[in-house]
Amino acid sequence: MALIDDIISLAHLESASLPDPAVQMARLSLADWLVCGWAGQDEPLAVKLREFAEKEQGASIATVIGAGKAPPRMAALVNGATSHALDFDDTHFAHVGHLSVGIYPAALAVAEEVGQSAQAVIEAFLVGAEAAIRIGVVLGAEHYNKGFHQTATAGAFGAVVAAARLYGLTPGQTRHAIGLCATRASGLKSQFGTMGKPYNAGLAASNGVECAALAALGFTSTTDGLFDPQGFIPTHTDKDLSPDTDLVPVTQRFYFEDNKYKLHACCHGTHAMIEALLPIASGLSLQDVSGLCLRTNPRWLRVCDKKAPQTGLEVKFSYAWLAGMTLRGDATGSDRTYTDALAIDDDLAAFALRVKVEADPSLTDLQADGEIHLSNGRTLPFYHDLAAPVAPDLLRGKLATKAQAAIGNKGTEIFSQLDKISHLSASDLGALIGRT
Amino acid sequence: MALIDDIISLAHLESASLPDPAVQMARLSLADWLVCGWAGQDEPLAVKLREFAEKEQGASIATVIGAGKAPPRMAALVNGATSHALDFDDTHFAHVGHLSVGIYPAALAVAEEVGQSAQAVIEAFLVGAEAAIRIGVVLGAEHYNKGFHQTATAGAFGAVVAAARLYGLTPGQTRHAIGLCATRASGLKSQFGTMGKPYNAGLAASNGVECAALAALGFTSTTDGLFDPQGFIPTHTDKDLSPDTDLVPVTQRFYFEDNKYKLHACCHGTHAMIEALLPIASGLSLQDVSGLCLRTNPRWLRVCDKKAPQTGLEVKFSYAWLAGMTLRGDATGSDRTYTDALAIDDDLAAFALRVKVEADPSLTDLQADGEIHLSNGRTLPFYHDLAAPVAPDLLRGKLATKAQAAIGNKGTEIFSQLDKISHLSASDLGALIGRT
Repeated sequence: MALIDDIISLAHLESASLPDPAVQMARLSLADWLVCGWAGQDEPLAVKLREFAEKEQGASIATVIGAGKAPPRMAALVNGATSHALDFDDTHFAHVGHLSVGIYPAALAVAEEVGQSAQAVIEAFLVGAEAAIRIGVVLGAEHYNKGFHQTATAGAFGAVVAAARLYGLTPGQTRHAIGLCATRASGLKSQFGTMGKPYNAGLAASNGVECAALAALGFTSTTDGLFDPQGFIPTHTDKDLSPDTDLVPVTQRFYFEDNKYKLHACCHGTHAMIEALLPIASGLSLQDVSGLCLRTNPRWLRVCDKKAPQTGLEVKFSYAWLAGMTLRGDATGSDRTYTDALAIDDDLAAFALRVKVEADPSLTDLQADGEIHLSNGRTLPFYHDLAAPVAPDLLRGKLATKAQAAIGNKGTEIFSQLDKISHLSASDLGALIGRT
Repeated sequence: MALIDDIISLAHLESASLPDPAVQMARLSLADWLVCGWAGQDEPLAVKLREFAEKEQGASIATVIGAGKAPPRMAALVNGATSHALDFDDTHFAHVGHLSVGIYPAALAVAEEVGQSAQAVIEAFLVGAEAAIRIGVVLGAEHYNKGFHQTATAGAFGAVVAAARLYGLTPGQTRHAIGLCATRASGLKSQFGTMGKPYNAGLAASNGVECAALAALGFTSTTDGLFDPQGFIPTHTDKDLSPDTDLVPVTQRFYFEDNKYKLHACCHGTHAMIEALLPIASGLSLQDVSGLCLRTNPRWLRVCDKKAPQTGLEVKFSYAWLAGMTLRGDATGSDRTYTDALAIDDDLAAFALRVKVEADPSLTDLQADGEIHLSNGRTLPFYHDLAAPVAPDLLRGKLATKAQAAIGNKGTEIFSQLDKISHLSASDLGALIGRT
């Protein structure tokens, strides 16, 4: 089946055909996305985008995080960037990018416009995310390595699919919406480290809304925006390609189920270690530990093995500091934990001298392995692989803990909504993150 | 000098440093752009974009062609697409694209916002156009041949430079605006033949406005959006590149002076013939002509040598029909001329049998050469090269004729404004094309 047909059919897949584990995970992604959005609202780029929205004004239709309402395309732009401001949102490794921040803002904004349910937002996100992953996989690492940012590029197609579903576009209109997105989608990795990176997530979301809205008005485009001879995919990757991909059919598998979540507000390279230490931290104090040996994929040693961090930001890249923080129960899930004062914490500094980090090429970059040596002579081995699936209840608990650490009671409030999600509307979701 | 510095300095070039012939031509481009915009307003894509603007509403700041006012970013989107709807606007061959439709909508919208003069709109367009050409030249034919549409891509950088000048951005802010544009700009040629092509011109204009407006609010981006290791240019062309280009410095030459105008609402491949015949048409009737021999670049024979057109659209691709129309004084500059009835015009059909078209590889695709044989035995040679510069007064006359043919008295009204342009504001220009 040609990719374009696969993507169009995703937009129109019946709710009953969506696999339950994927729907469950999409629901958790919604809560996590709302948390990331709320947490990012005071970042300078979020403030500036709200100023831009105030300048344009426009119809009060869709909620802007931390503000009132705006046209859906603008809400999608602001919310996409705001929720990616802290880079604390979910990641899909095969897609090579962040799904929620590009797609949920589009789904929520359009669902508020058309008066849909929260469940419809989740389902629209899910089919959009699945579309974005499939397009991201076909674009491949070649696309990313050339300099494109799948979060923005493949993400825009995900957003357009989500928006197309909620606008109720026909398959023909959906085809045009995807065709328009082919000429609209953009986003470069060279923005990393600047406000341009979160902006890219906003671009995905707002491009998706714009193209679907135009197609709903009868705007036309090319018949295969993805695989026209000079369509989006051939122009944006050097990979050898065929429109008949070897992707597993949607009916057999939702790649979305491999989605991963950031639970700690520090470098991703330290997360496997933190997850490995958490189950054994309870009941231990730093004084009990005479030594800690960590083995990790060699590539991380250049990234997150700061032996003596000087600032809160550098702590995020320090195995030794983060090991100590995890063992004594610090809230690694909160950006506010990483103060400059933490970098001169005497207990952590003393503990860091007892931490040894070694490269182990047999480990993937999602794995951590090691031992804790206790003063009483015992040894506690630890190991974690971020690639391993996490049981839904366990994942929910971890995300709720992150939410509480990141934004306090607001996080608890957001997670408590999950139990009554089937009774909520898109507008209720908007009310959770807006301000009147 | 690195391209990025060249482009930033263009945005801040003093009015007195702008070469007068380029300013004159930019003024003609303004009038021609207003004519193309007015002419395109009833095209379905223009109507749909106005519906989109009505749906979003927003601050009444900048004029939408054929409508009221909208936020500048929206006015730029609608006006860019509307003015390119008929594909009747200017072309710059080295840039490989259409300058006015991507840049004037941005310049006019921002100038209306900040309350600038018409002259400031023209100067902002000019520096933006020069920036777009230079970026287009560096991207090269490789960019176009790969599938990108310079009108949209390089055009967005032109729009951002024009908007940056009018917003009064500092050089630092202009750098950020260009950086944001690097991740925002997009546009594919595979849209040709659909509403997606004019949409691309709208994208250039609205992307330019958005990125400059965000930079004005303090939004930051990468320091060299063009030539970062994975900046816009290396990611969007396979050409071998260096940031130190061999472009002639701005202080020596404005490439914009090579800008070309479409004077006839038919295939560009027929224009050299029409221009060659116009000077000898006066006083001739079709009955006087016993034969016409045309020589043209071989590539055109596959495009515009329809021997027996069946529709008005096909007439636009018929040398024989267009030769007859030119000799008898039809208004080739009006889209409305090309009716289906014209395809069954007996006089033209009879004349077409006396027309012979030959390939001549020694001619460029901008040249036409040939002879008319008269019944009285005389022979009238004709020749035209579209690449040859046209004296400003002559060009103005031709564009005014086109304007009159295309949109009647409104065209005359627009051209009459040129003489008092120094007394006009951006808002006066807006009033020319808006409706209240």
